[in-house]
Amino acid sequence: MTKAFVFDAYGTLYDVQSVAGVIHEAFPGHGEFVTQVWRLKQLEYTWLRSLMGEFEDFWSVSRASLLFTVRTLGLKLEPAVLDRILDKYLNLDPYPDAVTALRKLKEGHRLAILSNGSEKMLTDLVANTGFSDILDDTISIDAKKVFKPHRTAYELVEERLGLKPEEIIFVSSNSFDACGAKCFGFKVAWIRRAAPEALARECVEAETIAPSTMFKALRLQVEELGFKPDFTIGSLSDLSDLVDHTSAH
Amino acid sequence: MTKAFVFDAYGTLYDVQSVAGVIHEAFPGHGEFVTQVWRLKQLEYTWLRSLMGEFEDFWSVSRASLLFTVRTLGLKLEPAVLDRILDKYLNLDPYPDAVTALRKLKEGHRLAILSNGSEKMLTDLVANTGFSDILDDTISIDAKKVFKPHRTAYELVEERLGLKPEEIIFVSSNSFDACGAKCFGFKVAWIRRAAPEALARECVEAETIAPSTMFKALRLQVEELGFKPDFTIGSLSDLSDLVDHTSAH
Repeated sequence: MTKAFVFDAYGTLYDVQSVAGVIHEAFPGHGEFVTQVWRLKQLEYTWLRSLMGEFEDFWSVSRASLLFTVRTLGLKLEPAVLDRILDKYLNLDPYPDAVTALRKLKEGHRLAILSNGSEKMLTDLVANTGFSDILDDTISIDAKKVFKPHRTAYELVEERLGLKPEEIIFVSSNSFDACGAKCFGFKVAWIRRAAPEALARECVEAETIAPSTMFKALRLQVEELGFKPDFTIGSLSDLSDLVDHTSAH
Repeated sequence: MTKAFVFDAYGTLYDVQSVAGVIHEAFPGHGEFVTQVWRLKQLEYTWLRSLMGEFEDFWSVSRASLLFTVRTLGLKLEPAVLDRILDKYLNLDPYPDAVTALRKLKEGHRLAILSNGSEKMLTDLVANTGFSDILDDTISIDAKKVFKPHRTAYELVEERLGLKPEEIIFVSSNSFDACGAKCFGFKVAWIRRAAPEALARECVEAETIAPSTMFKALRLQVEELGFKPDFTIGSLSDLSDLVDHTSAH
């Protein structure tokens, strides 16, 4: 019996690719490279810092990975530009169907976010995008000082919502996160934002495989980590189809 | 006083890019994509499995990441082809200066490998490439069931060689590994296999940034993780320059 839906934030409710505009403006001609490498390194740094036992919060990790990315191009990153790009993380675009999907699910379920984002980043993002009234809780991994997919991060959901893992559907478009959540014990819905057939065609037919295709290949396909999601869906809107099968009302 | 040099294997003593030949042969037209994505995912899976507490050895992780990579292209991976590609990891090309560099350092120092590779992979690789007589020890992280840069993996060096971290220069071309080793307490020599100026030019001038450039950008630049190497060198040959400054003889 499903009592709550818990959502990843970045890439799942909010489109991390919506930073592209401000990045293109700051680095004309290099927007795609900076957007994709930044996101790849941002995630890497959460994993590497967690493994090294050297936690810094997601704001700090996002800043460091952006510095890394721009330095790779041999370009300068002025403090004002750095701030402007990072600030976009407080105003990411929600996926177009997010509000409607959440409102549908709200009937009969508690709704929460569990995110790598820092307390402050998440509070601002949820407030700025008008999600405060829809969500029952916004949980940052800050309290545990370790990022997903470490199981300690997922433990926060039980502690904060008072629900058992099997009463929760965890929703993520990040395949590594879906694996981590499944390994932890949640029921998991993975949002597949890149169709495998289309991606395969894109890879096979491209003269040179571009950074945005590399990103899709590296991050948006089902991982070979031994844990498969319970549900694979195409968008947040599809979640309501799961309610009849898994919920009490 | 430096009593031992401890080397990372893959990318440091051995060229992981030397799998490209057998991959190009198996997947004509897609060799670059498969070579680069495979290596990126292989490392990701070591990090993610370590974080999830779901260890499988490096052979298994290498196999899974290769399956992931080929599936992304929508191609089949026949068992015989899979075996042929994986077997190359038992016969990787050493960097051309590796043997000479190690022989020079052997005078007055113990030499060892600390690698993510499984016991069997490393035993075979070292034997097949004629390094058995040069190395005093070949240490796999298998014994700890956690991959670098987790500090537990680096503890094996002290346990096996009976030396303190400050008596060791840890050598790696993998920047995340250099950070992990430095964080642990070793003196660290990082081999910079891609000059930043040349890489920046390559990124800035390319019409479309290719997977091999993405790999260099993602893996071969100094990380922004708060730990800098003690020495940055261009190749294994440069290690002998460090001996006068740090050793007793």
